[in-house]
Amino acid sequence: MKRVYNFSAGPAVLPEEVLKEAAAEMLDYRGTGMSVMEMSHRSKTFAGIIQTAEQDLRDLLAIPDNYKVLFLQGGASTQFAMIPMNLMRRKKADYIITGQWAKKAWQEAQKYGKANVAASSEDKTFSYIPDLSNLAISEDADYVYICENNTIYGTKFKTLPDTKGKPLVADVSSCFLSEPVDVTKYGILYGGAQKNIGPAGVTIVIIREDLITEEVLPGTPTMLRYKTHADAGSLYNTPPAYGIYICGKVFRWLKNLGGLEEMKKRNEEKAKILYDYLDSSSLFHGTVKKKDRSLMNVPFVTGDKDLDARFIQEAEASGLVNLKGHRSVGGMRASIYNAMPREGVETLVDFMKKYEKEILNV
Amino acid sequence: MKRVYNFSAGPAVLPEEVLKEAAAEMLDYRGTGMSVMEMSHRSKTFAGIIQTAEQDLRDLLAIPDNYKVLFLQGGASTQFAMIPMNLMRRKKADYIITGQWAKKAWQEAQKYGKANVAASSEDKTFSYIPDLSNLAISEDADYVYICENNTIYGTKFKTLPDTKGKPLVADVSSCFLSEPVDVTKYGILYGGAQKNIGPAGVTIVIIREDLITEEVLPGTPTMLRYKTHADAGSLYNTPPAYGIYICGKVFRWLKNLGGLEEMKKRNEEKAKILYDYLDSSSLFHGTVKKKDRSLMNVPFVTGDKDLDARFIQEAEASGLVNLKGHRSVGGMRASIYNAMPREGVETLVDFMKKYEKEILNV
Repeated sequence: MKRVYNFSAGPAVLPEEVLKEAAAEMLDYRGTGMSVMEMSHRSKTFAGIIQTAEQDLRDLLAIPDNYKVLFLQGGASTQFAMIPMNLMRRKKADYIITGQWAKKAWQEAQKYGKANVAASSEDKTFSYIPDLSNLAISEDADYVYICENNTIYGTKFKTLPDTKGKPLVADVSSCFLSEPVDVTKYGILYGGAQKNIGPAGVTIVIIREDLITEEVLPGTPTMLRYKTHADAGSLYNTPPAYGIYICGKVFRWLKNLGGLEEMKKRNEEKAKILYDYLDSSSLFHGTVKKKDRSLMNVPFVTGDKDLDARFIQEAEASGLVNLKGHRSVGGMRASIYNAMPREGVETLVDFMKKYEKEILNV
Repeated sequence: MKRVYNFSAGPAVLPEEVLKEAAAEMLDYRGTGMSVMEMSHRSKTFAGIIQTAEQDLRDLLAIPDNYKVLFLQGGASTQFAMIPMNLMRRKKADYIITGQWAKKAWQEAQKYGKANVAASSEDKTFSYIPDLSNLAISEDADYVYICENNTIYGTKFKTLPDTKGKPLVADVSSCFLSEPVDVTKYGILYGGAQKNIGPAGVTIVIIREDLITEEVLPGTPTMLRYKTHADAGSLYNTPPAYGIYICGKVFRWLKNLGGLEEMKKRNEEKAKILYDYLDSSSLFHGTVKKKDRSLMNVPFVTGDKDLDARFIQEAEASGLVNLKGHRSVGGMRASIYNAMPREGVETLVDFMKKYEKEILNV
């Protein structure tokens, strides 16, 4: 067995320990004589799995008691509809557009009410986070929406916008559990698991209880009401049980490593290795405003498409895989989520240095 | 490692070979150096996995070219809304109510139009399939809905209703791939994977192309439009990739065993062992009309709650687990899906005989 360094933006690298445990438990989960895939979601064993996962997540993020944790399906794309269907009581919301995913969320919301653009960085291919100091938040907005870390473009909100008292709804898919956050600043924070938490097919929604009500828009499917899942402890119907089990193992791995303060330290160190090199390189450079750089997704280019393509190909041959950037940015992107070890980033930078030397004949 | 005989109604037993393969490939899928959980859904490797899964499913069911196969999320409960949102153009549909799941589907449809009850077996706790010979199908119905195998009650449609030309929509969750079917008789057949196909978190929808159109009800979320997923080959957003991979392994396992004719033979044999014993027992008896008996879910009772409870407990201690019936029927239920080996059913019947002898002092 040979493992590569996998820089995929998502689905993405998972901790090797988690995968080893999952493999070992595949045919017999802790003496039950069955796989977690074969287990009734109403069984005591699975209740233990989902409850432990939730408690570990609550511990990691210090989630207050007045927030519910929901394990759902359908990805962020389903949340794009679920959020307005559940929250747009006055049919108005403000969106800050910092990338393709925020834009898709905003487009979907327009089906359900007036979705304003409070700020946007589309003018410069989403390469920065807009000025948040005095946003034009609508007086009767039901919520303000952001995508906190922009996977494609490699930017991150370093401060949260002043929503003028409106609930902040944040897609945190690609920065989930990468550092501590103050949950009380959000009305909803949610994310697909497949970047920093677990396998695709689980969406985690952390929602303040007062935002969970019966008053949803007419025609909202039962499965798209937050109340349905909150009332049933995420067991209204069969949940994506195996995915939740893997997420739970990742939560436990994070706790064992020291929690989110420790992850923040590690993630800052890893990102610094890569960004410092990019800032000193004569061949490669980053594509976004320095102050807005993501710790998780690092896009970079040489400025020459052929050199980019050759780099990606040679890196792959050396076991550094999935470095191709998103088509809207081009070049390369290294996603260095929690589960990417420091050695992976060091190996990448060493490889980049070698490539630079080779190309520039230094 | 000790494996039990797991009679869970779902999530349910999976083929041991499939689980062994999945465990072996967990850290390195066929030389890629990563788990299928860590793989980009846009990668060539995953494209191979999902395309092979679809082709194997098409081969197993002889799915005609004018039907699309969609790998979705959200379970049958999401389909309960998705079906009317996509199909109720004239805002009318007919439902045949043969159990709790058909009833839930009917209730959800009432949000979107007029959902008539064309027939029901609720008068006798859904212990039979209603007479289908001359149903009152509405002239302008958009579709006729059935739940083909009723997991809780243990009944199955042995013939399909005459829908008088309207598209038939069938929830086949608990009989999916248990025997050959004529796909051309359906407009849509769909099911959650977690009973006969794979892990929870994957919903498979087989839909006739003419039912996939732009004309959905206003307010239908992008993610709840069949067209969204059909146009994108189930890759509009990140799919439940690991679950699809496991489903694919089950499809291949079925093909290797000889396909659905062979499964039908095996399933009939397994069910006969259990039903023959139930019909001859002085202690246990089945709860549904004989002609409507399911091959997959077999509910039975002693008629004495204490004896039922003791049986379930003693069976569990002997490695025959998850035999408790649904609370609405009581007693016991043995779900004997494709992956339940014949020896599991034989062991169960031997255990029942022993218990009968013990109780009746024969």
